[in-house]
Amino acid sequence: MTADALVDEVLAALPPDRVLLDPDVVATFLHDEAEWAPHGRAAAVVRPRSTAEVAAVVRACARHGRPLVPRGAGTGLSGGANAVDGCVVLSTERMREIVEINSDERLAVVQPGVVNDDLRAAVAVHGLWYPPDPASSPWSTIGGNVATNAGGLCCVKYGVTRDYVLALEVVTAAGEVVRVGRRTAKGVAGYDLAGLMVGSEGTLGVITEVTVRLRPLRTGTPRTVVGFFDTLAAAGDAVARVTARGLQPSAFELIDKVCLQAVNTWKHAGLPENAAALLLAQTDLPEPAAGQEAAAIHAEFAAGARDAMASTDATEAEALFDARRLAYPALEQRGEAMLTEDVCLPRGRLAEMLGRVEEIAARHDVLIANIAHAGDGNLHPLLLTPHGDEPAKLRAQAAFEEIVAAALALGGTVTGEHGVGLLKIPGMRAELGPEVLAMQRAVKQALDPQGILNPGKVVG
Amino acid sequence: MTADALVDEVLAALPPDRVLLDPDVVATFLHDEAEWAPHGRAAAVVRPRSTAEVAAVVRACARHGRPLVPRGAGTGLSGGANAVDGCVVLSTERMREIVEINSDERLAVVQPGVVNDDLRAAVAVHGLWYPPDPASSPWSTIGGNVATNAGGLCCVKYGVTRDYVLALEVVTAAGEVVRVGRRTAKGVAGYDLAGLMVGSEGTLGVITEVTVRLRPLRTGTPRTVVGFFDTLAAAGDAVARVTARGLQPSAFELIDKVCLQAVNTWKHAGLPENAAALLLAQTDLPEPAAGQEAAAIHAEFAAGARDAMASTDATEAEALFDARRLAYPALEQRGEAMLTEDVCLPRGRLAEMLGRVEEIAARHDVLIANIAHAGDGNLHPLLLTPHGDEPAKLRAQAAFEEIVAAALALGGTVTGEHGVGLLKIPGMRAELGPEVLAMQRAVKQALDPQGILNPGKVVG
Repeated sequence: MTADALVDEVLAALPPDRVLLDPDVVATFLHDEAEWAPHGRAAAVVRPRSTAEVAAVVRACARHGRPLVPRGAGTGLSGGANAVDGCVVLSTERMREIVEINSDERLAVVQPGVVNDDLRAAVAVHGLWYPPDPASSPWSTIGGNVATNAGGLCCVKYGVTRDYVLALEVVTAAGEVVRVGRRTAKGVAGYDLAGLMVGSEGTLGVITEVTVRLRPLRTGTPRTVVGFFDTLAAAGDAVARVTARGLQPSAFELIDKVCLQAVNTWKHAGLPENAAALLLAQTDLPEPAAGQEAAAIHAEFAAGARDAMASTDATEAEALFDARRLAYPALEQRGEAMLTEDVCLPRGRLAEMLGRVEEIAARHDVLIANIAHAGDGNLHPLLLTPHGDEPAKLRAQAAFEEIVAAALALGGTVTGEHGVGLLKIPGMRAELGPEVLAMQRAVKQALDPQGILNPGKVVG
Repeated sequence: MTADALVDEVLAALPPDRVLLDPDVVATFLHDEAEWAPHGRAAAVVRPRSTAEVAAVVRACARHGRPLVPRGAGTGLSGGANAVDGCVVLSTERMREIVEINSDERLAVVQPGVVNDDLRAAVAVHGLWYPPDPASSPWSTIGGNVATNAGGLCCVKYGVTRDYVLALEVVTAAGEVVRVGRRTAKGVAGYDLAGLMVGSEGTLGVITEVTVRLRPLRTGTPRTVVGFFDTLAAAGDAVARVTARGLQPSAFELIDKVCLQAVNTWKHAGLPENAAALLLAQTDLPEPAAGQEAAAIHAEFAAGARDAMASTDATEAEALFDARRLAYPALEQRGEAMLTEDVCLPRGRLAEMLGRVEEIAARHDVLIANIAHAGDGNLHPLLLTPHGDEPAKLRAQAAFEEIVAAALALGGTVTGEHGVGLLKIPGMRAELGPEVLAMQRAVKQALDPQGILNPGKVVG
């Protein structure tokens, strides 16, 4: 018996290895990777192995009116998985079975704890492809990807996680196990509750199984085009020109000098550091169309770049895309506190927004590194401050808020793919306005009347 | 002054030409094209020209606690726009302004009454393409397409209406004007209320403006592959083989002999009638990849067809696709009552389902014509009975119900793209089960607590 009747009930309902109570161990489950987002203390961490075990935990929380905070790998960047005081944290890390891979229907069924890259590798064996590829794909889980509607490099041509979710098994706030969505290519039977669950950050139900749509595996070697730009704004202009011309790169990324330097320092990668920003575009059309599209992208890059080149060297191209993927962990190696932005702009305002970010960084004396899914207008300014430097932290927070405000002023959104979590609640309020917020809260109230599912997230 | 205080209030709020009260005129607005779906009598029909006028009508209905039934062109096939007694029917037919076409952002903003084909033509001038193409596209409106999440021929490769809705302006049940969604390529600020509105058939809000995502206009001539099959099941098998092989036709349709005969009779089209079913596939890849994909599709057709051929003759191909588009109106010319099915199956079960449809038709002695978005597994068995033949009508209704049950038994859904409306409410209940239905009703209750918006539709 513990001093907590909820914990006693959870211990009685699950095999003992499912429940973690040691405070030092519990402490490692209390927050995601969003620096500076607050978190509380959990009563327990549970690591169920089955839907039935998840349902038992939710029912126990419901009976006691206590909060449940679901989490995947904890790679989130908005505080969406952060514990609240007295909650049970439910980690899906042990629910990692790939239940089905079906070539005839082009779908897979997985438990939520399956790691993104593991799913991609497993379906590739069957000639199939799961496109959503957040930079966290070596670690993040499909359940977490669905809960946050994760994006990635492929989105610019192939869409985000929502576009690949066919059906979900969900444990409701009452602890009932339901299935929403379908296994067919199309379907309109009732409101799209599966779509509503995507991006709801565990506030409307706990996802216990995911049916994803797949594409045929891509074949052939993509062509890569690189441009080196003297200013972020010039790079932003090139992105706008490529889009306006009707080109459709399969990846279209921006990396700035600070990021390139960090990757070089960490990995001795020998990447070029002599430009303010690098644009990386890839085309995966069948040849010779790929060559034509690459030439067109090259022409638009060359019109504003210091230097631009097209490449068919897969190794060289992969090294550059690795630099993009490694930028975030490389910056973490600097040992500084990092606040990650995620604003998304209309593509035509990208150059202007990048200019504002530079101006905000200078005015607040904050080092800001920039990576971006440029083709989507999705910017990730990364605000870096030395650990323990409180004045720098305050300046960074002020800069963070100004970036959010600038994105809204330019017709953008406060979060393109990381989610609202805790960090973007004020921004989301400003973006949506009181009437839409009231609708959001009404939906939350309808599906979680007690407010036990990840309270305080998304709708605040 | 009329005898109805609500009508008086609407008359006072709107310019006089917006309100129709003549019973003969009102009678033409009381139902869509779903034969046999019941409808009630409306108190008035309003045809507002602006969002403010829509809001005034909704507020009047809210004050009087009276139902409001929105409609587009009335081309629906499930009774979703059918009047209920005492309602105000709100037709969006006069809200047909194309507000913005933006090449830089690849989006358009339109009022809900803009006709689908008109939008497609308008954006093509700017080198852009709006893919969703329901067979009703010459008449149906974007607002209606969004309200029903309309599909069409392009869905098999390019997705349905939901995949193209970026943002909506909506008048809520309380008469407030809100904006949901965004203008950016990506965004996760709050629950996806725009996605929730798509397919909600006017039961959660009245759509007054739609921001759609566009693609670059396709160039080049697609290649067409045709197969003639001796049985529907053999055609279904060919569809499954094409999908399992990882091919991605940009249209993939089935037309049966009854439909071909009807088009020939109506349009003297000279289409081949010597096979049970025709499969039509198109590929729009850039050459030479299109040639390779067409050859692969041809091989799969030839493996089970009486005859198969690939064509690059655009005129010939267009004539065959016209036959697909004209099948529905051609059958209407027969002057019989027609009940339209819309089940959607896992692609691997298509042949089995087509066999069951044939068996059900024979057993109930009902003439069933079949058209299908075969590549999506979306079947439209069309049940035909002579007008006034009550026993035939009862047999057709029994066959309709058996088709729905068979689709569910094979893992399908009761409606792939036409919507629940009234006709599919029993089927939807069977498909979703009581717990998910309760969630659907909770969402409806949250956003329309008085239950005034298109009552009785979707959630019953």
